[in-house]
Amino acid sequence: MWRSDNSAGLRVLLVTRISGLEQDLRSRQLPGIELVRTKIDEDTAQVIDQAEVVVADPALVAPHLHRAANLKWLQSTYAGVNSLFQDSSRRDYQLTRIKGVFGPLMAEYVLAHILARERHLLQLARQQQARQWKRTTYRQLSELTLGILGVGDIGSTVARAVVALGMTVWGLRTRSESIPGIKRVFAPAQLSEFLVGPDYLVNVLPSTPDTRGLLSGATLNRCRPSAIFINIGRGDIIDEASLVRAMDKSWISGAVLDVFPDEPLPEDSPLWSISGVTITPHVAALSLPGPIAEVFLANLVRYQAGEPLLHQVLWERGY
Amino acid sequence: MWRSDNSAGLRVLLVTRISGLEQDLRSRQLPGIELVRTKIDEDTAQVIDQAEVVVADPALVAPHLHRAANLKWLQSTYAGVNSLFQDSSRRDYQLTRIKGVFGPLMAEYVLAHILARERHLLQLARQQQARQWKRTTYRQLSELTLGILGVGDIGSTVARAVVALGMTVWGLRTRSESIPGIKRVFAPAQLSEFLVGPDYLVNVLPSTPDTRGLLSGATLNRCRPSAIFINIGRGDIIDEASLVRAMDKSWISGAVLDVFPDEPLPEDSPLWSISGVTITPHVAALSLPGPIAEVFLANLVRYQAGEPLLHQVLWERGY
Repeated sequence: MWRSDNSAGLRVLLVTRISGLEQDLRSRQLPGIELVRTKIDEDTAQVIDQAEVVVADPALVAPHLHRAANLKWLQSTYAGVNSLFQDSSRRDYQLTRIKGVFGPLMAEYVLAHILARERHLLQLARQQQARQWKRTTYRQLSELTLGILGVGDIGSTVARAVVALGMTVWGLRTRSESIPGIKRVFAPAQLSEFLVGPDYLVNVLPSTPDTRGLLSGATLNRCRPSAIFINIGRGDIIDEASLVRAMDKSWISGAVLDVFPDEPLPEDSPLWSISGVTITPHVAALSLPGPIAEVFLANLVRYQAGEPLLHQVLWERGY
Repeated sequence: MWRSDNSAGLRVLLVTRISGLEQDLRSRQLPGIELVRTKIDEDTAQVIDQAEVVVADPALVAPHLHRAANLKWLQSTYAGVNSLFQDSSRRDYQLTRIKGVFGPLMAEYVLAHILARERHLLQLARQQQARQWKRTTYRQLSELTLGILGVGDIGSTVARAVVALGMTVWGLRTRSESIPGIKRVFAPAQLSEFLVGPDYLVNVLPSTPDTRGLLSGATLNRCRPSAIFINIGRGDIIDEASLVRAMDKSWISGAVLDVFPDEPLPEDSPLWSISGVTITPHVAALSLPGPIAEVFLANLVRYQAGEPLLHQVLWERGY
């Protein structure tokens, strides 16, 4: 149980909307820790000045960061921490993020949508409603190439999953060394060579000044006309008008979009109703409480022992 | 090119509805072979008596088998050859089937339908039509167990694919030795112990006297109420009334059915409209021409050299 022991107590402030995370943390045996769950906003503003350690959803804590006079370590509950860069210029604390947790979920999302399209699942559901027995041929995964924009922790996990099922993988990444299982690795400057190959293109890049708008304008004109763009990274890699235009001009044949510059996706967005576009409400990798608690607790042991923390965000890199 | 050379000619009769198979075979360099493609039924009846080697869809050739006085070898274009057992008692020829080709396609089908259900793809498609942004949580594949009825060539390939994505696999098979990656292997006599565990249950068993009706009656009553039954083996493992009853009594929560005792599934079947039941028109693993041609040609080389053929059906075993 968490103890409220003022002599040995390390106060940990929890600012989150992830259901079950508080219960999960409280159910673990952690002596010398006082866990304080804040009600969003009012409470956070009042108690954050005393907090040395904060576990928080980035967007929820960002507006209060300037008041956190004693902050030494902030454990993000998400992989993406860009709101902490946008809403605050503070760099005088250790920021750690979630890593190693979302990759398998992202891989499942990518496979779900590739297989649903290849196997015509929506069409078959309509045929079933009409009691219609009608076959459509399809491609084997071994015929298909997936291009991954951003082959880090998550991208590598997506790559391993689809390679295990016979797909070919191309990757685009800053560091150009080869990666086992990935057939071709491209540097960012080779973007236009990279885009010509894949049948499916998945973005898992974080949002940084280098990635924002990377696919905007006429960039997708380089893709195969049959290509499908899957976005599970950040919504700002392409602006909405550019994406609508790419579909309109048949530069690509479809898109599966889980992230958007503005979320929830506004009801008047044209994306909702473009044929070939699938919209999902930022669910590719939900923050499930168990794995997040485990990342935090592994870091807490290190923090108390004065050891380097896992998954530290490098301010100059932006993730 | 195929030659019509009477001195060295080996006549190969092709009886198939698989589009592209004839073209694929004719495009390969094979001296000393005369390929005869029959129009179904009339032609087959007239020329089959001269044929030594036949490449055929089992159901198409079965009615003509009694006329094939010179038949030495029949290469089935399918994995399942039960129609040759049902419609003919002939056992005086070598029967070979397709193997190693359908496993990856079956694995893709199983994954497509598991992921579509776990990730609520049909519900999300309806929400998109209504421009509705609404999240539903889901399970990770690593939390789920797949039970495979029949861990042969195809079942093992399905197992490898889902294990690579973190699922746990239980298997039911005649031979009880353990299989790498499969957590528990059950003998047929342990069926009722096997059924209690899996979240998804997939049948890939061939149709034999031992498997027909194996899941009929109240057998599925042993399953978890949340279990989903996927049938990509043969439709006669459970009769329709038993399956309708299992859904009605909530012994299982859903079914994904690709094979049926009677195909196409009759328009008046109650299965079409049961909530939780997915019907697909026997498409889990379509017979794509390239891989079938390759199996036949590997066997043709062996046949001409007098060597044992690959993937021979054992009459006493039934597959």
